[in-house]
Amino acid sequence: MDHIKAAIRTIPDYPKPGIMFRDITTLLGDARAFRAAVDAMIAPHAGTKIDKVAGIEARGFILGGAIAHQLSIGFVPIRKKGKLPFDTIGQSYELEYGTDEVEMHTDAVKPGERVLLVDDLIATGGTAEAAVKLLRRAGAHVEGASFVVDLPELRGVERLRALDVPVAALVAFEGH
Amino acid sequence: MDHIKAAIRTIPDYPKPGIMFRDITTLLGDARAFRAAVDAMIAPHAGTKIDKVAGIEARGFILGGAIAHQLSIGFVPIRKKGKLPFDTIGQSYELEYGTDEVEMHTDAVKPGERVLLVDDLIATGGTAEAAVKLLRRAGAHVEGASFVVDLPELRGVERLRALDVPVAALVAFEGH
Repeated sequence: MDHIKAAIRTIPDYPKPGIMFRDITTLLGDARAFRAAVDAMIAPHAGTKIDKVAGIEARGFILGGAIAHQLSIGFVPIRKKGKLPFDTIGQSYELEYGTDEVEMHTDAVKPGERVLLVDDLIATGGTAEAAVKLLRRAGAHVEGASFVVDLPELRGVERLRALDVPVAALVAFEGH
Repeated sequence: MDHIKAAIRTIPDYPKPGIMFRDITTLLGDARAFRAAVDAMIAPHAGTKIDKVAGIEARGFILGGAIAHQLSIGFVPIRKKGKLPFDTIGQSYELEYGTDEVEMHTDAVKPGERVLLVDDLIATGGTAEAAVKLLRRAGAHVEGASFVVDLPELRGVERLRALDVPVAALVAFEGH
């Protein structure tokens, strides 16, 4: 995964002082790294039957769209509150200060459908956990989750695994 | 394109009374329709050399990510103001009331790169025109643009063609 890690740009002090922002736009713009990342996000779940990819807004849409296309399956957008036009269910989660909420269309998954959750990065796992809860409330089975970047100090992967979700993350960065 | 059109849901009076919102999430969730749409968005530009796909936030990320992956090329996100972490260039455009702005990283395209612009829907073409201007200011050649939905009454396709951009749209809906 060294070539994937090398394609990710680090921006110090963004969005605020002390944060090292891991910017995957440089990876997305690199044809080989983008394709390698998509393939590597799928590989750990090979042999698992998957019916749909759920991508978390907004960078999870880019990777999730590619993964759904590669697997020839449908795509489900999980969006920030107030962005989806049809009937939704919502799930709130805690931020460092305050709370936020993600939403999904009520008919986005059918009961029993098997879903792969996709985002670019897992930090504390708060958004991903909310997404898993949303999908399960709709009756879906969350068969796995794939991320490009893990920030292990924030223990998001452990949080998802505690929900019995198999997690794959391609590269890890220390610090956050 | 009848099966693609049939997979799009219309939501009356969203986001405000009198608007018929064309919701492509039902298309994205339908494995066959999603794949057919991606293929049909690429086909009109076959024979044109393309180096990168530029997708417009947020639904253009899903389709653009799939198209970039299918073509084995890189992806460039065009985002709403203030969302990109690195140095950006911005381009404002007029809304019915007021203005809005899209941004792109300064290093997202190299001079001379050939780009396919992707979004889910073209209405007045204001956002797409701003994206074309951004890409050209960065030195890229906009070789084409692909949309799932065209609202012909709003004449966005004509507006892009007036900029010498070849445009493909899969389905048209009357009204807006």
